[in-house]
Amino acid sequence: MSTSPPVGPSNPRIKSALRLRERKERDASGLTLVDGARELRRALEAGAEVVEAFVCETLLAGEDARVALDALGAGDVPTTTTTEAGLAKLAFGDRAEGLVAVVRAPSLGLTDLRLSVDPLILVIESVEKPGNIGAVLRSADGAGVDAVIAASPRTDLANPNVVRASAGTFFTVPMAAAASQEVLAWLRDRRIRVLAARVEGGSAYTDADLTGPLAIVVGAESEGLTDTWIGPEIEAIHLPMLGIADSLNVSVSAAVLAYEARRQRGGHTTGAD
Amino acid sequence: MSTSPPVGPSNPRIKSALRLRERKERDASGLTLVDGARELRRALEAGAEVVEAFVCETLLAGEDARVALDALGAGDVPTTTTTEAGLAKLAFGDRAEGLVAVVRAPSLGLTDLRLSVDPLILVIESVEKPGNIGAVLRSADGAGVDAVIAASPRTDLANPNVVRASAGTFFTVPMAAAASQEVLAWLRDRRIRVLAARVEGGSAYTDADLTGPLAIVVGAESEGLTDTWIGPEIEAIHLPMLGIADSLNVSVSAAVLAYEARRQRGGHTTGAD
Repeated sequence: MSTSPPVGPSNPRIKSALRLRERKERDASGLTLVDGARELRRALEAGAEVVEAFVCETLLAGEDARVALDALGAGDVPTTTTTEAGLAKLAFGDRAEGLVAVVRAPSLGLTDLRLSVDPLILVIESVEKPGNIGAVLRSADGAGVDAVIAASPRTDLANPNVVRASAGTFFTVPMAAAASQEVLAWLRDRRIRVLAARVEGGSAYTDADLTGPLAIVVGAESEGLTDTWIGPEIEAIHLPMLGIADSLNVSVSAAVLAYEARRQRGGHTTGAD
Repeated sequence: MSTSPPVGPSNPRIKSALRLRERKERDASGLTLVDGARELRRALEAGAEVVEAFVCETLLAGEDARVALDALGAGDVPTTTTTEAGLAKLAFGDRAEGLVAVVRAPSLGLTDLRLSVDPLILVIESVEKPGNIGAVLRSADGAGVDAVIAASPRTDLANPNVVRASAGTFFTVPMAAAASQEVLAWLRDRRIRVLAARVEGGSAYTDADLTGPLAIVVGAESEGLTDTWIGPEIEAIHLPMLGIADSLNVSVSAAVLAYEARRQRGGHTTGAD
């Protein structure tokens, strides 16, 4: 670590990193911000390219921070030590953990996805809130989903709040983003069966066959799925809503559906994925 | 509706209602704030006592707002029309829907809970974030859970952000709050079987018998359950985590477990609950 005195909010490196809060800067650079010790540790362990880091030594605490700092040192990542005000300028989470880093976002091309022989894919359509996308990634990680595909998303997946809400799974769950029509064509080409989760209609999800190569498509909360997901080869399923509300949070629906698929596939093991 | 001119942020009624953002004021009055057209509509439809309402006519839009306004009028609820700045002072959600109301919070005594003959109960222990409690209520509503019990909660359930995150199910899902030991004693008295969801150990939840009178206990994300939930009569279960993360969001775990219980109970119907 550097022995220069900690820098404050007006430091040019901080100002430069801060521009990654804007989508156009993220799109142009392919970079994003990671805030938090656990998130940065997971990024490093997943082999993400950490371009530079900002560390506030008086805020550092815990095992995750120690492991992340060691990995930054071992990887010769350029690191700027900051004052608490300097770090606060960059941080956006609700915890102050003394670590924010500039990291290369994963590739999001459909053609880059590597699937198992019997893939389980979650497709989320038109989702707008970064927090919901991050929460879906976290649920998908838990359920051992092969990939999460954002169909016609209304935000960029590299939004720092996606990373934050994903609890670091942003760097490990394979992801792609493309227009809904392209996603459907890609699934058809690979003979992956498509099940569209709708508020009403179709079978209850527990009556549907969720084994074999499968993509489950869930929509944004307010509107449900577009007509792209209606067709002779597409089976509609629904998640029974037994109370007064008409939908679940998208990360909750995704988890219930994916865990049921895992149950039907026989045993909660990751297999050869 | 009143014909007096709309009032601004310094209006004494607004200032008085604003005090309900503080827990001690909510505890003393038994009242809370409801922000949003859908939330207020659901409160009214559930028969909650709406003490007074604040309406900004230039922000009102949609079916939920219209239904809520009609019900306020029919119920002779004292209503103050506000300027946009007046309403903004009171509102706390991320949407501005022109409606904020002061509403009596439901009773939270264990003895007030009415259960079906074959109850499914979710117990959430030590949960701190109001948004997580609201999200659990929404999941519980969807899965047709009989009641949600907050064991040794770290926030008050009447926090306006609980109401907001619950998508209005705060007013319809039966709730109680008590110390963990009291909750366990209450469950034992009623011969309700207790299953404690832990990160590791016990059976996979899909191998456990989730039929019959049952309480499923889930903990706060950071720490898991306290030792109250270890004992000869308490069965440990776990939700397999197939990725890198060590836990799911508590509302996601609650939904996966409750929907699996519904599946095992045979058919996704609310029955005679």
